[in-house]
This record gives sequence, structure tokens and C-alpha cells, in this order.
Amino acid sequence: MTEEPRADYILTLSCPDQRGIVHAVASFLLVTGCSIVDSQQYGDPDTGVFFMRVHFRAQEPGVDLTALTNGFAATGASFRMQWQIHAAETRMPTMIMVSKFGHCLNDLLFRHASGALPVEIPLVVSNHQDFRQMVEGYGIPFVHLPVAPDKSDKAAQEARLLELVREHEIELVVLARYMQVLSDEVCKALEGRIINIHHSFLPSFKGAKPYHQAHDRGVKLIGATAHYVTADLDEGPIIEQDVVRVGHGMTPDQFVAAGRDVESRVLSRAVAWHAEHRVLMGSKRTVVFP
Amino acid sequence: MTEEPRADYILTLSCPDQRGIVHAVASFLLVTGCSIVDSQQYGDPDTGVFFMRVHFRAQEPGVDLTALTNGFAATGASFRMQWQIHAAETRMPTMIMVSKFGHCLNDLLFRHASGALPVEIPLVVSNHQDFRQMVEGYGIPFVHLPVAPDKSDKAAQEARLLELVREHEIELVVLARYMQVLSDEVCKALEGRIINIHHSFLPSFKGAKPYHQAHDRGVKLIGATAHYVTADLDEGPIIEQDVVRVGHGMTPDQFVAAGRDVESRVLSRAVAWHAEHRVLMGSKRTVVFP
Amino acid sequence: MTEEPRADYILTLSCPDQRGIVHAVASFLLVTGCSIVDSQQYGDPDTGVFFMRVHFRAQEPGVDLTALTNGFAATGASFRMQWQIHAAETRMPTMIMVSKFGHCLNDLLFRHASGALPVEIPLVVSNHQDFRQMVEGYGIPFVHLPVAPDKSDKAAQEARLLELVREHEIELVVLARYMQVLSDEVCKALEGRIINIHHSFLPSFKGAKPYHQAHDRGVKLIGATAHYVTADLDEGPIIEQDVVRVGHGMTPDQFVAAGRDVESRVLSRAVAWHAEHRVLMGSKRTVVFP
Amino acid sequence: MTEEPRADYILTLSCPDQRGIVHAVASFLLVTGCSIVDSQQYGDPDTGVFFMRVHFRAQEPGVDLTALTNGFAATGASFRMQWQIHAAETRMPTMIMVSKFGHCLNDLLFRHASGALPVEIPLVVSNHQDFRQMVEGYGIPFVHLPVAPDKSDKAAQEARLLELVREHEIELVVLARYMQVLSDEVCKALEGRIINIHHSFLPSFKGAKPYHQAHDRGVKLIGATAHYVTADLDEGPIIEQDVVRVGHGMTPDQFVAAGRDVESRVLSRAVAWHAEHRVLMGSKRTVVFP
Repeated sequence: MTEEPRADYILTLSCPDQRGIVHAVASFLLVTGCSIVDSQQYGDPDTGVFFMRVHFRAQEPGVDLTALTNGFAATGASFRMQWQIHAAETRMPTMIMVSKFGHCLNDLLFRHASGALPVEIPLVVSNHQDFRQMVEGYGIPFVHLPVAPDKSDKAAQEARLLELVREHEIELVVLARYMQVLSDEVCKALEGRIINIHHSFLPSFKGAKPYHQAHDRGVKLIGATAHYVTADLDEGPIIEQDVVRVGHGMTPDQFVAAGRDVESRVLSRAVAWHAEHRVLMGSKRTVVFP
Repeated sequence: MTEEPRADYILTLSCPDQRGIVHAVASFLLVTGCSIVDSQQYGDPDTGVFFMRVHFRAQEPGVDLTALTNGFAATGASFRMQWQIHAAETRMPTMIMVSKFGHCLNDLLFRHASGALPVEIPLVVSNHQDFRQMVEGYGIPFVHLPVAPDKSDKAAQEARLLELVREHEIELVVLARYMQVLSDEVCKALEGRIINIHHSFLPSFKGAKPYHQAHDRGVKLIGATAHYVTADLDEGPIIEQDVVRVGHGMTPDQFVAAGRDVESRVLSRAVAWHAEHRVLMGSKRTVVFP
Repeated sequence: MTEEPRADYILTLSCPDQRGIVHAVASFLLVTGCSIVDSQQYGDPDTGVFFMRVHFRAQEPGVDLTALTNGFAATGASFRMQWQIHAAETRMPTMIMVSKFGHCLNDLLFRHASGALPVEIPLVVSNHQDFRQMVEGYGIPFVHLPVAPDKSDKAAQEARLLELVREHEIELVVLARYMQVLSDEVCKALEGRIINIHHSFLPSFKGAKPYHQAHDRGVKLIGATAHYVTADLDEGPIIEQDVVRVGHGMTPDQFVAAGRDVESRVLSRAVAWHAEHRVLMGSKRTVVFP
Repeated sequence: MTEEPRADYILTLSCPDQRGIVHAVASFLLVTGCSIVDSQQYGDPDTGVFFMRVHFRAQEPGVDLTALTNGFAATGASFRMQWQIHAAETRMPTMIMVSKFGHCLNDLLFRHASGALPVEIPLVVSNHQDFRQMVEGYGIPFVHLPVAPDKSDKAAQEARLLELVREHEIELVVLARYMQVLSDEVCKALEGRIINIHHSFLPSFKGAKPYHQAHDRGVKLIGATAHYVTADLDEGPIIEQDVVRVGHGMTPDQFVAAGRDVESRVLSRAVAWHAEHRVLMGSKRTVVFP
């Protein structure tokens, strides 16, 4: 006697809002013998777009990812959905990029190693050598892709970057304080699959040295913002933000130090949510089902 | 020509978890011409109980609260649901009780007056006269129900209390720093319909003078807890909690002052969530769909 | 036999940083028989300015505010200090101004009534009549100073405003959601004595409808900023800020509602700190000794 | 020509409160040619004990730690002070102990490596081997001190522990999720020099499995507490606490995961404050000058 198959899946979808969407999804799951573990939805009144994330469990023999994907196609088409089904236990292949500040990298690597971050990390890429030992200490390949000060080799470096993304079938690129500005081509090629941590509570202090700007202005809280990267620098859709209290007695360097924690936390939350298919993209804003 | 009817409703339900619940609800709404505005659900793996809250919109002529309630009865029965449908625009009749500390009362009255709290307040009851003017200033009847120091008239006072609840068809009683302990009979009579604010981060400092206990212990954060009242003092299901930072330089009185804000916020959130049917009761824990 | 006098005072000072300042202050207090209750200081490394706040207790007969002020003058002059001594129990005469949103006003009035806000409020001024009853309910005079839609009478209205400030010896003006832009003359006349609450986490969303701007941008936190008013709109020195979490499911109106609490808290903290002489003004930034 | 000496020191003291303490300290610093960088003080009205921390800069030739310590002795004695002077740039020798959960260890090691934690770490001790590679990857010796399941070798293990403390002149022991209960003798030997992270908002859930207790009770926030270790388990003076929001949809395991971040943050703050001599010990409560 064979054991009963049993696997969890995540369905995400967005489509024009209309009556019957939830019913159609629930019907599909019922007839395929799946049970709903968790479900969240949101209809945006501004844009008329409906978003849904369903975590469900398949229990019938033969109901696997292929069967589910084929089975849902007609429903998806009839409601003009953008939709995806993922096996819940598949860890998203993720490439981390870093330059000279390693706190976010360290945080992500440790969470990954302790099983708290649902991603697979086939490689870490850096334009510097500083964190080779840390990365290799975790048994992860480290790839050094430097950029010349005059940027003359930048096009070649970015070409190699995209090659690595293809080779390793990377689904998510995380800029964990990667300090090179990416070309519009790279931004476009990785659209919706590349997350940056900006060390400011956007849109407050765009551009360089945000903690110094904040210090100069005498703000009482500083923050960090994780967002998708678009060609429009520091303006991509926001995934997560948080703040920490600062005081007049702190120097700009102490602002920087205080910011490290909040950057690490905000980025790791954003990466986990993305990897668990909890972030859906609206026209300008994200919809996050935490 | 008549205008199209259009009204919002809230369905809440809990039942033993099984396949097909969401489908059954979605089917019912589809065939009655209702569209889902917002829906949340949760299956408790510990107890096997499924909880759901659906905010939906009826648009067909003749589909009113009675029709919906009659129509859903068979579905409710077949899944052994505890369920309720409420018209979303109906404001829950709420009685506030207060003694000598008025910060929570003031907060609730102002929110109510500015339309931010979805309740109707037919009366405020107090065992003291201190806040008569404040309450009547808002055009709300103030009822003085004193208790003698020797408590000899407490049974009579509580009987009058329950009478007022019946007369005004009160669905929610809010103890906004009401300092008399209620008898088990009253707790039972109002079970699930009476919310207290405890001026502590329960279960840390039960009983009297929690801020003094906290000060004595040197804690760095103090908190407040809104919970349903049960016969077991300070042990009812928790609805909401929050904290505020305190320091060694603060006296117990300053702890008390710092606590006022967090008490007001926590209680008003709990009242709003209850009034919007966002709090479902599990066996010991609440399920809050915020 | 006469009772021993005993009164608390607050000394605040700022001056060019140099050796011996603390010693000079401590010497003065020692020789006048005063004991230090609490003392805070800060030397700004950027500007070379030293800030100090000392809460002390006088216990010798004849040592009153006049004696202390005369006694400290030579020390103050020799270190080129800007300094002030206030009796700690004197409540700062404060005028509140409001327009159509009353949550900050209600919060300030209730705190004042319950003794939690160390100010005296001789009057509330509004360009509308909406809150007359609330203010008078607290036994505080309400003055209606309307401005015509074409602003033709604005100069006269502002002149009357400054007259009221003089008549009532107002030391602090609080703009509790007062929606008229003040002229440069009024800003200058009240410099350092007028606090505004901006319903945004400055400098993120200056100008009108900040919650709508924030919603449009998809931020995950919204905030409020209390700052001194200067002629440069929304750019005066920041006293206090705080934030509250928001989600994609909230409408701009719900952002507004969520913002009310944080505005009230931030403004009341700023007013209390100013009234207790805890806010010292640097060149661009405030120094807050909480 | 020789360069001018210039070094920073921290003076901490506590003594019975009386007039003239600040003056005496300021006089001493003035006559030794030192300038005050930062100073904080607190007089506890309950116990009559005065606490002070002064960060000062010596600029005269010959004024070094020995000279300062000898020079201050008479002042210290006359006011019956418990006092210490430390060179600000000396990093406190710190031993970290860990068992099977490495998130706090990883956090402390990375902060140390990036210069954000002002301690020196001569060794890490564990009763397990799990984190040998991580520790040695940072170039820090790892000492394995196992305890037999029947605890028969516990006395010997603790003796070795205290030996290591002496050999390495350890001034601070950090229990970064070290899961062995220490004997009263060890607690006493290291009194005031040993910090534990308790994975609960004390005093809420003492003892084992606090996250499961919290889940069972349905709390809406969970927390962590860093405290000095005393023989009375989980009852030592609290240094720092923080909380994080949890929801009904989270399992006890997810409570555990959410707790990891707050534990790491709370412990690293407590360690940094202790190492910078910012934590002074009252009778039962700490005084923290952050």
C-alpha cells in the first residue's frame, strides 16, 4: 500500500475585480481534493484590481504541480488572471550581492543557515573581496565581480552578472548594501525579481549619505526601506519599512550604527515575504500578505 | 424607477475545520448576488477549529439581512457553524463604565464623537459622579450607580446594571477603568460581551497597583491589556496589548502617567475591533482579523 | 518658628563649550545652598556649543527666584551664556489654536484637566466655531478669530492674535491642527515660542494632504512631526516625531484616522517638554533632555 | 616637541545622596585639567542613593589612569562613594557562552568584528560543538566544556569555567542562550559581571518554554529580557527589554523565530551598555545611562 501524497502549494493571482473569483478558486480546490490552509485577498478600490494568495494542501494521488497548473489554466484565463502556483517547500534560488558593508549579508546568511529564511543561496556576488571568508565559511560560493573605478568594464561586469543569474536559475537578486548603480538594462531584465535595501525612510532622504542628511535635519527617528529596484533610482515599489529612535547626542556615525539593525531586519523580512510569495505587485504599490 | 439596493454585511463563523467551507460560503454569496469585499480566515491546528470573517456587498433587490440570514441557515447547519450576519452600517449599542480615572472614557467619547469609533453609546454608567459633566457635554446620558463602601448594596447595583443592559439592548459593555470587581453572575450574564482594560502587560503584574509592581521590579517597558472579562479575574481572553518604554528616572506616578496613553490606545482598538466583528473567540485565545 | 522654604527651579543654558562650565554651575548651587535633583548636558561637536539643563532645589531662607537670578548673572556673563531660571512649579501660560480637526485639542485639554500637562491655558483661539462647546466645557474661554475666504482681514486677525498673546502673557502658542498659514511677521514675533504639529514624518511629505501622498507612494509607516514654527514652512527645528504602521488595505481616509493618534501623542509630548524647559535650541537642531 | 597627550575616561560612582557631589567631581576634573564630554546622574528618591557617570577628557601631560585614580581617592572616600575610573578606549575582556541556539552568538560576533561592540572576546565557551566553525571563522578560540547528562561532572566543568575567567582576566560573561543552570557559587563569584538573555518579557513567563507559554495564553506581544544573573533564577536586575508583535495565526515555532531577533537586539544592547560602563547597580534595579 502506498502512502497518501500530501503537499502544500501557494497560488497567487491578480485580475480585474469581479464577482465569483473566490468561488472559482474555492471550486477548483474542492474538485481537485485540496484544502485551504490560509487565504488572503484584497480588492484595490482605486484601480479595480483584485489580489489573492491561497496556501492549500493537495491530498489526492496524482495531484501535483503539473496537474494543478494545467487544471487551473482555464479558470485563470476566464478571469484574465496573472497567476502562479508554487510548491510551498521549494526554496527560491536567491543571489545576494554586497559591497563593503556586511551587516545585511551576515544577517541573511545566518538566517539561511539556521533555516529561518526560505531561500536557497547558490552564490554571493561582490565587487569587493571583503566578505569572501564569511561567505565561504557558510559553504556558499563567492564570486568576485569587480568594477574598475572608471567604470570602463561595467557593461562586461553586468553581462557576467546576468549570465550568473541564468546559469543558476536565480529567481531573486538581493542587493544587501551593493553600492554600484545598476544600468537600466539590468533593472529591466530583473524587474520584480530584485530587492534593494535603502538606508533611509524613503522618500525622506534619497541619494547618498542619508544618515548624514537625517542628522543634519535633526530628525528623531531614522529608518530603512526595502523596495523593488526599478530604473528610477530609489523609487521602486516599497515592500517594507521600519524606524529606530535617535537622539541629539548621537553623531552621524552613531546614526549609521543604529541604522544597521533596522536595515538588516527590514531586508530579511522583505526577502522572506518575497520568497514565500507574499508580495504581489500592484500598479505602483505592493500588496503584502504577511 | 427605483434605485438599486446596495448594502454591506459582515459574516463571521467558526466550525470544525473540513474541506469545502470557503467554497460553501463563496457559493452562497455568488448565488445571492453578493460580492466579497474582504475576507479573512484561520484554521487553528491545535484545536481543529476554522474561523472566518467575510465582508460582502449585496446588490440584488430583496437581498436584505433577513433574506441572507434565512438563506445561510442550511449551510451553517450542515457545517455545524456558529455564525452571525450583521449589517455593516449598524453601530453596536455600547455601554461604557468608569470610576475615577477618565482618560479611557475621554478617549472613547472623543473618538465616538468624531466618527472614528463604530459604536452607539446610549449611556455611560459610573459608581462616581466625577465625569457627569464630560459625558453630558457629549450629549450622552450619565447614570450614577454608586456602591456603598461596605458593598451591602452591590447585588442591587448589579441588578440595576443588567436591567440597563436589557433596556438599552446593549451588545457591548466596556470597563474603561471601572474599579469595582463584578460578581461571577454578571460576568457570566455578559460573557463575550464585556471588555476590560488592565493597566499591565498581562500576565506580568496581575492584581492591584501593577505600575508600582513594575517599578519595583525595574522593568524597562510597561504595557496594557484589553481582554474579555471572565469570572477568573485578569485571566480572560486577550484582545490587544501594547507597551511603552520607561526608565529608571521615572517614579511610580510617572509610570502611571505613561501608562494612560497606552491604556487608551489599546482599549479603543479592542472596542473598535469587537464592534466591527473582527474578534472571534477560540477555546482560550481570541482570533483577531484586523 | 517659620517653616523652611523649599522650592524647585530649572536652570537652562547654552554657551560656547569650554572647561569649567559644570564646575561653575555646581559651585553656584553649592554656595546658595541648593541641591541638584537632575542634570543633563550636551556639547555639540559640530558647533562647539554646550547645552545644560539643571533641576535643583533651594532650601535656604531668602533664596528665591529673584535672588537666584541676580546671583547667577555674573557666572552667566563670564561664560557668555544664554540662560534662564524658572520656578519648576510655575505652569507656562499657553494658547492653543485649532481649526476643524479637534483630536489634538481634545487630547491637550484632557491632559491639562487631569494634571498631566504642566501648562496653564488661559484661552483657546480658533478660526471656526466647531469646538466652542468642548473648550467651554473645560471652563476655558474660547475666542473666535475668523479669517475671510479672500484673506482680506488676515492682517487684522493676526494683529488681534498678537494682542491676545500680550494680554494673557502667553509664553507658548500651540498650533493644534490650525490650518491658516501664519505670516512671516507672526512667525518672527513668536520665534521659539510656537509649536506646530505636521501630519507627516517630515521631511517626507511636505505640503498639503500628506496622508494622501503617503498612500499614493505605498509607504508602510506614517508619522507625525512636532516642530517649532519658522517663516520657512514645515522646515522649523524638529522637537519630536513618531510613526504608526499602515497597510495596503487601508484607504487614504484610514491613513488619516491612524495618523490622529500619533499626531496627538507627538504634539502633547512636545508641549510637555517645552513647558518643562527640556527643549533647547541649537543653530538648526533642537537639543531635547527628556 | 612632544605631542599633547589626550585620552578619554569614564568615571562611574554611586553614594548616599547629599549636597556637593557634582561640585566635588567637577572641581576634581577642573583642577586636573580635564573637560567633561558627557555627564549623567540620577538620585533615587526611594533609596537615597545618587548615581553618576561622567565621560571626560584629560589633556594635561602626566594625567593618566593611575594619576586620576590616585587623585580621586580622597573625594571618593569623603562621600563614601563606590567608584571606578576606566580608560574609554579599553575594550572589556568578555567571554561568551552558548549552547544550541546561535542567533545571539552570531549577532555578537558580527558586531564585534565590525567594530560595533566595544568588547574584546578572548574565547567562546560552549557545552556543545555546534558553533566551533562559526567562532573559529572569526579567529576566536572556541573552548568545548561539555556537561554529562547526569551532571556528574558539573562541578568540575564550572571549576574549569572560573579558571578560564581568571586566566583571560574576563570582566564580563555573556550567556548567549547558554542552557545549563549555573550553580549558586558561580553566580556569586561572577556577581554583577554576568549577563543572561531570557527569551521572555520577564516577569511574564519564567521557567522553560516561555514562547509556548505565551502562545498558550494568546498574548499579542512577545519579548526578551537581558538581566544580570543572580542565584535567584530569572530574577536578577533587568538591564534591557523589548517586544515584538505576534498574531493568532502563528505557531509556537513561529513565536520562537520571531523571538530570535528581539533576543539578539536586547542582548547586544545590554552588552554594549555594560561594556561602556553605562549600567550602574542599585539595590534591586539597574540605573542605565544610555
